[in-house]
Amino acid sequence: MPAPHRIEADYLIETAYDPRRAAEAMAGEQSSGTFVAIPGETPELKERSAARIEALELVGTAEAPSLPGAGRPEGGVIQRARVTLSWPMDNLGPSLPNLLATVAGNLFELKQFSGLRLLDIRLPQAFAQAYGGPKFGIEGTRRLAGVEGRPIIGTIVKPSVGFGPTETAELVKLLAEAGIDFIKDDELQSDGPHCPFEDRVRAVMRVIDDHADRTGKKVMFAFNLTGEIDQMRRRHDLVQELGGTCVMASLNSVGLVGMIELGRFTQLPLHAHRNGWGYLSRAPMLGWSYVAWQKIWRLAGADHMHVNGLANKFSEADDSVIASARACLTPLFDDKPCIAMPVFSSGQSAKQAPGTYAALGTADLIFAAGGGIMAHPDGPAAGVASLREAWEAAMSDVPLADYARDHAALARALETYAA
Amino acid sequence: MPAPHRIEADYLIETAYDPRRAAEAMAGEQSSGTFVAIPGETPELKERSAARIEALELVGTAEAPSLPGAGRPEGGVIQRARVTLSWPMDNLGPSLPNLLATVAGNLFELKQFSGLRLLDIRLPQAFAQAYGGPKFGIEGTRRLAGVEGRPIIGTIVKPSVGFGPTETAELVKLLAEAGIDFIKDDELQSDGPHCPFEDRVRAVMRVIDDHADRTGKKVMFAFNLTGEIDQMRRRHDLVQELGGTCVMASLNSVGLVGMIELGRFTQLPLHAHRNGWGYLSRAPMLGWSYVAWQKIWRLAGADHMHVNGLANKFSEADDSVIASARACLTPLFDDKPCIAMPVFSSGQSAKQAPGTYAALGTADLIFAAGGGIMAHPDGPAAGVASLREAWEAAMSDVPLADYARDHAALARALETYAA
Repeated sequence: MPAPHRIEADYLIETAYDPRRAAEAMAGEQSSGTFVAIPGETPELKERSAARIEALELVGTAEAPSLPGAGRPEGGVIQRARVTLSWPMDNLGPSLPNLLATVAGNLFELKQFSGLRLLDIRLPQAFAQAYGGPKFGIEGTRRLAGVEGRPIIGTIVKPSVGFGPTETAELVKLLAEAGIDFIKDDELQSDGPHCPFEDRVRAVMRVIDDHADRTGKKVMFAFNLTGEIDQMRRRHDLVQELGGTCVMASLNSVGLVGMIELGRFTQLPLHAHRNGWGYLSRAPMLGWSYVAWQKIWRLAGADHMHVNGLANKFSEADDSVIASARACLTPLFDDKPCIAMPVFSSGQSAKQAPGTYAALGTADLIFAAGGGIMAHPDGPAAGVASLREAWEAAMSDVPLADYARDHAALARALETYAA
Repeated sequence: MPAPHRIEADYLIETAYDPRRAAEAMAGEQSSGTFVAIPGETPELKERSAARIEALELVGTAEAPSLPGAGRPEGGVIQRARVTLSWPMDNLGPSLPNLLATVAGNLFELKQFSGLRLLDIRLPQAFAQAYGGPKFGIEGTRRLAGVEGRPIIGTIVKPSVGFGPTETAELVKLLAEAGIDFIKDDELQSDGPHCPFEDRVRAVMRVIDDHADRTGKKVMFAFNLTGEIDQMRRRHDLVQELGGTCVMASLNSVGLVGMIELGRFTQLPLHAHRNGWGYLSRAPMLGWSYVAWQKIWRLAGADHMHVNGLANKFSEADDSVIASARACLTPLFDDKPCIAMPVFSSGQSAKQAPGTYAALGTADLIFAAGGGIMAHPDGPAAGVASLREAWEAAMSDVPLADYARDHAALARALETYAA
């Protein structure tokens, strides 16, 4: 799909006012609207910069307002609508930080709305020139992890906090020997006093290098470098110097401008953690859809994006998880797709492989499990094997139960895990 | 109040499970909890790092879940509780980005909760050492604006977009001649092609300097430098070089790490715009309270924090506005108060002065009006005068109607404005 000439954003709105009038208020607030005439403003100036309503489709009514504080004219039916607004590129230029104030700024608080959610954004080609996007993506990640033709099987260092560098490295040794492809730090651990970043990287890289020397397989470890700009730069350089192959950052902790900077200087794949995502998204009539949100971070340089997992331990429904993963795999621009590898996690085991593959039709993803590996009754190696076997079955269109007949690790996993 | 030894956070939770069990799940998820026993973990390690429940108080029940996706055990009554968790400082060290993942990370999505809102945070003293806080605050802002003993009367450049540097400077001239103390850029305009930052700063500073030369009064202008790190640095340096006295940034566009960096290098007061705040806060049982949120930004260096205004044009209730302003004026640490000047705006006119003063008991604030100045029937100078007069009345405990008898600008304002 060719990039639009204007910036476009789709919203789900809920209002007791006339929906078109409410959308006009939104468009005015977010562009050249003023409540009183101002000396110097002219119809030409205002027209040049005005946001436009490109589409408005009523999608239903609500019995009660979803959010408090909205106005309700007497007898006003609460209607929901899908609205597309557009803005001239020249209102802001191709700047992601300024884009946020435009498409996701003051409008969520407007009195006209008892619900307002940003569903999607589409950006003109100038954004593709202005931002680098993922430097590694699927191909670069696969090359560094040495995994082709199947998902990258991953896990996480737990407990999140408590382990020092030595305990962390011992766990990595165990997991490497179990055949894992990918390990990530927990988002709670970056450079805490009990587990300093440098000591952790050195201890973990020794284990990873030893294992690679012996087996030829170099486990990819996403070191959580979340911190201030200079800290992230130093931590990145250390990981790179020691031969590490991935760094991780928490998107909502670092924020957009920090991530843009990290995206520009990183020489390693950027594993983007979405912790805090719940507060942006969990109220259905407020905030952000992941489809809109992930575009910002991919353009800024995220190589891997967390999408939760099917039958997860959190509150997200499966269709939402799949929509998120599909979004990460959909090109941003025809000539610059900026594809990020979706990361499935949270309560994952062998059982979710067929559903995940059926919904996505690709194995270009990181499939991370904690208990799905560590709690396998035959040990972590069997846990990893069960995940690989489950994906082999899924990708060959063989039911798990059939494949399990001559795959013992998978068989035990199917007996063990609930989901 | 002395700083706590551990990091503390207060939450409002809603759950159909046993509230204490649900709080334990939260504490575990955000510290050393694991679903399966991991080789290497010991009771000592886990105890050292575990988050603790410091308090739990039931505050009521809900008929239906506030948010979708939560589990509901059969017959489970949906209860609400106020919970305080605490974490050892050594889990993360005094790092604001890592603090976010700890107090506001993955917990909002936990299946146990049909509502979870962060109400407040309290930080150990080490954070006061690690971060600079506001460099100017009330005293520094008053000094640069040349305003003592009353609120700083402010306004905004509107239309947000559409004006070029020339039109902007002409509007500034008009407002300066009207006696304004403070003007801010709109959050939608930073460095757009029609209004490049450098041209705007040069044009506006010429007007401000001319006016200062003639009258001795130098209007404070908050130039919106929101952008990437290097852009913000260059823009800041330009404003400083040209004798400007304030810069503005959008908190949710820049993000935490960018704001920390800006807070460290700025030599001018930092006017922090909260656009996007609605998506973080408007669902009552999700997200952030402003009381918790503003602490992060003050520590990072925000000198001025937007708090909306009484009887505003948005959906926020007055008590919430006042709680936000009080929070900005409450010391963060005994020896490092980090007070930020609250910025009142949105539909403000002379009419809101008494209520604002009565609720806060101080005039240490920026009181910004758009229509409240520009739509005054006797012109902008009368608009500015009406606001000053309204505050004189409020601070002298004289009813506006009485004070208006011999203050014509105020009298006309009271006839004109609805709120």
